[in-house]
Amino acid sequence: MLKPLGNRVLLEVKKEEEKTASGLVLPDSAKEKPQTAVVVAAGEGRLLDNGNYSKPAVSVGDKVIFEKYAGSEIKYQGTEYLVVKDTDIIAIVE
Amino acid sequence: MLKPLGNRVLLEVKKEEEKTASGLVLPDSAKEKPQTAVVVAAGEGRLLDNGNYSKPAVSVGDKVIFEKYAGSEIKYQGTEYLVVKDTDIIAIVE
Amino acid sequence: MLKPLGNRVLLEVKKEEEKTASGLVLPDSAKEKPQTAVVVAAGEGRLLDNGNYSKPAVSVGDKVIFEKYAGSEIKYQGTEYLVVKDTDIIAIVE
Amino acid sequence: MLKPLGNRVLLEVKKEEEKTASGLVLPDSAKEKPQTAVVVAAGEGRLLDNGNYSKPAVSVGDKVIFEKYAGSEIKYQGTEYLVVKDTDIIAIVE
Amino acid sequence: MLKPLGNRVLLEVKKEEEKTASGLVLPDSAKEKPQTAVVVAAGEGRLLDNGNYSKPAVSVGDKVIFEKYAGSEIKYQGTEYLVVKDTDIIAIVE
Amino acid sequence: MLKPLGNRVLLEVKKEEEKTASGLVLPDSAKEKPQTAVVVAAGEGRLLDNGNYSKPAVSVGDKVIFEKYAGSEIKYQGTEYLVVKDTDIIAIVE
Amino acid sequence: MLKPLGNRVLLEVKKEEEKTASGLVLPDSAKEKPQTAVVVAAGEGRLLDNGNYSKPAVSVGDKVIFEKYAGSEIKYQGTEYLVVKDTDIIAIVE
Repeated sequence: MLKPLGNRVLLEVKKEEEKTASGLVLPDSAKEKPQTAVVVAAGEGRLLDNGNYSKPAVSVGDKVIFEKYAGSEIKYQGTEYLVVKDTDIIAIVE
Repeated sequence: MLKPLGNRVLLEVKKEEEKTASGLVLPDSAKEKPQTAVVVAAGEGRLLDNGNYSKPAVSVGDKVIFEKYAGSEIKYQGTEYLVVKDTDIIAIVE
Repeated sequence: MLKPLGNRVLLEVKKEEEKTASGLVLPDSAKEKPQTAVVVAAGEGRLLDNGNYSKPAVSVGDKVIFEKYAGSEIKYQGTEYLVVKDTDIIAIVE
Repeated sequence: MLKPLGNRVLLEVKKEEEKTASGLVLPDSAKEKPQTAVVVAAGEGRLLDNGNYSKPAVSVGDKVIFEKYAGSEIKYQGTEYLVVKDTDIIAIVE
Repeated sequence: MLKPLGNRVLLEVKKEEEKTASGLVLPDSAKEKPQTAVVVAAGEGRLLDNGNYSKPAVSVGDKVIFEKYAGSEIKYQGTEYLVVKDTDIIAIVE
Repeated sequence: MLKPLGNRVLLEVKKEEEKTASGLVLPDSAKEKPQTAVVVAAGEGRLLDNGNYSKPAVSVGDKVIFEKYAGSEIKYQGTEYLVVKDTDIIAIVE
Repeated sequence: MLKPLGNRVLLEVKKEEEKTASGLVLPDSAKEKPQTAVVVAAGEGRLLDNGNYSKPAVSVGDKVIFEKYAGSEIKYQGTEYLVVKDTDIIAIVE
């Protein structure tokens, strides 16, 4: 098991279909869109100056949208994960 | 439903008419103007060092003016949204 | 009505005469000078870490001098405004 | 009257003689020297996080030395002033 | 013995096999992957403004994943170590 | 008299002999060395967020070593001074 | 005697043997290694916002490893020293 540290969150990214059935890449727009993922694990949070932790506002199983290009890729037991800071998570999809 | 995190605010942008009836683009000035949107959802706020939250000063339904180019575009269930930080919202149109 | 957020201040800029009667531009000096405006509305202030607000030190009707090039232009109901942060206001003309 | 805001200080700059009687410029050294001015007005100070103000350490009438190139030039009723932050004032000449 | 200071952590890096049996380098992707190491020693932590320490969230013996290129290499008694800040440790492998 | 403001310190610099008796410049190394000076006056200190001052840790008369190139040169009544921030003073020579 | 200020530490650097008996330079790797030194004196520490000092975590006589290229060189009574900030010290060699 991977246990992210600080305000990091472990994500399993949902690869969006970028090709049509015939294999063509269909760019929707030139502007980058954020990506969707599922929260696999979350750290204890960032230590505040008053001694408390700012616990990440997401829970395991949440489907989230995060800033593209944020974070570090980790391959663990054959699965690829992404570790991002909780501040790079834009929204929860409920 | 999309639930923005932190001091983020989910906006539905009002596309301004940029073309005349005949299809000509009429640039008003070279300087960029901010854009108008309606608040669809707002996060819990930014965690302050004293443990409180700086709740976004906008409410769902507010018509707002925000810094152009701020934020991330999200497409959700066929609608395009923009997620900006509340500090990128310039004013409420009352 | 426009209600600026945070420590933003809504200004109506006094366009200085830059041309003589005959239409010639008379640059006074190469160094940029700040500009004059009247305060139309002011936000609630910036939230401090102790939970208080740093209320803008200007009031509606104040004639102010502000850093040139600061802020965002807004056109609202046919009038052009400028929204600046209160820290971009240099002085009140009394 | 001009009332500077925040930790700004309104200065009237003493133009140093840069030419000799015959009109020659006599550069003393390649390294920039700070300049001298008299304090005309001072703001209320910078708001600290504990709610107090860091009042500028200069008083009206003080002759001060300030960092060259700091601040904004203001022309008001025929007189040229310079508005600098109090942190750009190096020393009081007593 | 080496005793890391502040929020530094002493790591012994596990060199990943980068070659196949036949000696060919098999780059998996162009994007950099983080690396794995074992915690050999940890500092007392970073001093917070309230006088407490933010103790590193790792213990001696933990297998960790850290940001590639972070830290300083140290050779001590024939062994190579890496000293990284605890904020450069992404996750613990449990 | 010059009274430095904030955490500034007024120094009178000891020009090091850079030439031999025969007038040759003898550079010791390509790496810059700090310089020596005597403290002539010290400001009240930097205002901390808790309302106290961080008084400069030097006293009038101290011989100090400071970071070369730090500070502003001031010429006052025929003497050249250097005003540096107290954080640019490296050590006291006792 | 030299008394370092703030969170500075006075080091006497141990020059590593970079040449073999025959005089050849033997570079171990292209990546820079930190260097070893002995603590000669330590400042009072950095003043925290709560009025306390963050005392350097090293004592006179400690053998330390520090970030190469950090600090300022000082020559005093024929001996060369290096003054670094305590945050540039990586580890104590015990």
